[in-house]
Amino acid sequence: MRAVLLGLGAVGLSLLTLLERTDSPCVPGLNIDIAGVADSSGYLVGKQVIGVHDLVKAKRESSLSFLPGFIEGGRARELIETAEADVVVDCLPTDYSDCSESRECMFTSLKAGRHYVTASKAVMALHMKEALEKAEGNGVLLKFGATVGGGTPFIDFGSRCICPGTVTSLRGVLNGTSNYILTRMAEGLTMQEALSEARQRGIAEADPSNDLSGRDSAAKIVILANWLCGTSLTLHQVRTRGIETLSSGEISEAGRRGKVIKLIASYRSVATVSPEEIDINDRINVSGSLNALSYFTGSGDSFTLSGEGAGGESTARAVLRDLAAVHLEAGPRRTH
Amino acid sequence: MRAVLLGLGAVGLSLLTLLERTDSPCVPGLNIDIAGVADSSGYLVGKQVIGVHDLVKAKRESSLSFLPGFIEGGRARELIETAEADVVVDCLPTDYSDCSESRECMFTSLKAGRHYVTASKAVMALHMKEALEKAEGNGVLLKFGATVGGGTPFIDFGSRCICPGTVTSLRGVLNGTSNYILTRMAEGLTMQEALSEARQRGIAEADPSNDLSGRDSAAKIVILANWLCGTSLTLHQVRTRGIETLSSGEISEAGRRGKVIKLIASYRSVATVSPEEIDINDRINVSGSLNALSYFTGSGDSFTLSGEGAGGESTARAVLRDLAAVHLEAGPRRTH
Repeated sequence: MRAVLLGLGAVGLSLLTLLERTDSPCVPGLNIDIAGVADSSGYLVGKQVIGVHDLVKAKRESSLSFLPGFIEGGRARELIETAEADVVVDCLPTDYSDCSESRECMFTSLKAGRHYVTASKAVMALHMKEALEKAEGNGVLLKFGATVGGGTPFIDFGSRCICPGTVTSLRGVLNGTSNYILTRMAEGLTMQEALSEARQRGIAEADPSNDLSGRDSAAKIVILANWLCGTSLTLHQVRTRGIETLSSGEISEAGRRGKVIKLIASYRSVATVSPEEIDINDRINVSGSLNALSYFTGSGDSFTLSGEGAGGESTARAVLRDLAAVHLEAGPRRTH
Repeated sequence: MRAVLLGLGAVGLSLLTLLERTDSPCVPGLNIDIAGVADSSGYLVGKQVIGVHDLVKAKRESSLSFLPGFIEGGRARELIETAEADVVVDCLPTDYSDCSESRECMFTSLKAGRHYVTASKAVMALHMKEALEKAEGNGVLLKFGATVGGGTPFIDFGSRCICPGTVTSLRGVLNGTSNYILTRMAEGLTMQEALSEARQRGIAEADPSNDLSGRDSAAKIVILANWLCGTSLTLHQVRTRGIETLSSGEISEAGRRGKVIKLIASYRSVATVSPEEIDINDRINVSGSLNALSYFTGSGDSFTLSGEGAGGESTARAVLRDLAAVHLEAGPRRTH
């Protein structure tokens, strides 16, 4: 299968590293060749396959621009139109204020009849309905398992292990950074101390505002509810409150009463994100940077899944799972 | 799809009740017709489809034997050979000391080229390798999602949401009855009181020995490890210790140290079942009759799934999910 890769941040680079390993593919017979790659400085497109090893080395040591054929300042959209590829992999940075590049890439790709595997939340949280309709209309696959829960397959579990159309509500802890901060605050740190520590440990990004404001959680509950509960929500419809104003006092006070405060994202008729006090033995009470999600069905079943919610390599494995699904579902006719 | 149903206990009867509801099937286009049904007294086989409503009514109000065509004392094996069916559904009672009937039914069915969906643990825990080989050799499907975790899709999650061949170890609470008893003992009840309560609430069976001895958990870890970790274990190879000899004193003593005692089934090179003291914030620390299982992969990911581990209706929904999978995987050529 020939792929174009957009974005060489933590996830994109981890994906290349996974592809470099001979033992990594999830599905026997799945072979992913890189037909083109774009980062913020430009793109590289190959008539022949581009060597993954060379890409990783160039990016780690200096820049793609030293590789022969690199088009400085070239736009991802052009790459998608030019490269001979079956699938486009979007590992572009998430930007809620302006996701126009991601959006342009996705719609260009779907229109061009290329499958699309994305780890970018913003476009999905803002234009999901349109994107799914376009994919269906053009007979291509759109996969977004890596947008929620990093390496933990919250999307796959909901669509592959629960009867379609039966999930009626969702409730979970969907942001690893804020959960890490709340966990450490419950252990006595101030928010500032907890945030510094999260940054040092590579859990929080340089700008953690999407995590602390609840926007990241809101995007995830939108994607989950739209996919599993049949809604057509966008990010703007989620009543969202973050953890910025929580004090250590409130958190330790809850602890004294045998409770914990968590940033809960939920969908039940309406979607909300808000700090909530929950029981310590609530199944979504996970600590550190873990994520957890409960799925409730109309027949009274409820399942809870938890796992690491972030990390470049885990998210890259989720992308790889989606590529494997494209390989299986699209069948040999559609892929090389 | 034409099905033969073996066993009309809690699971079999719940399955019929689910089929009676017009809205129940998990997959659009999945239609399950009953071609034959067996209970402990004999069997009924229909040239035409047997009405589910009549079956449920007869079983609930008196006995199948009043239905026209019922063969008193007829054996399930004969039914499998006689009925025109695509799939056989095994909801027979689990008997570890003598699973010869279940075994005979399974192998007869596989040999006759009929898919097999089973909720019976004993045959799988004792003869799984042989059964899977026979199914493959005869080109039929063998599904056993309902043998582990009642309605919670532990098997499906492992095989559909994690890359094949990557699960290296498993650790969980897999028996609802013993977990309910341990939970209530931690709240101050004696084992006898907790067991009585579990019986009253329909959680414990009349004879709970397989639950308390750990044998039920052992069967489940065998099935999970064989399927997900590529082992060829049988029940006899699991070092098994139950909860019978635990005292309320030990349990409350653990509680004073912030720990809980759980009956843990695990596979990591070897399979064991034993009461263990775990942290209260361990992700497999679930209460009441819940089950939980952690999956560890070679790449360092770990996922934990939890949900109700028992109950006739939940287990019947797992059977229905497996029937839906047979319908999808076998394709229209193999099914009516």
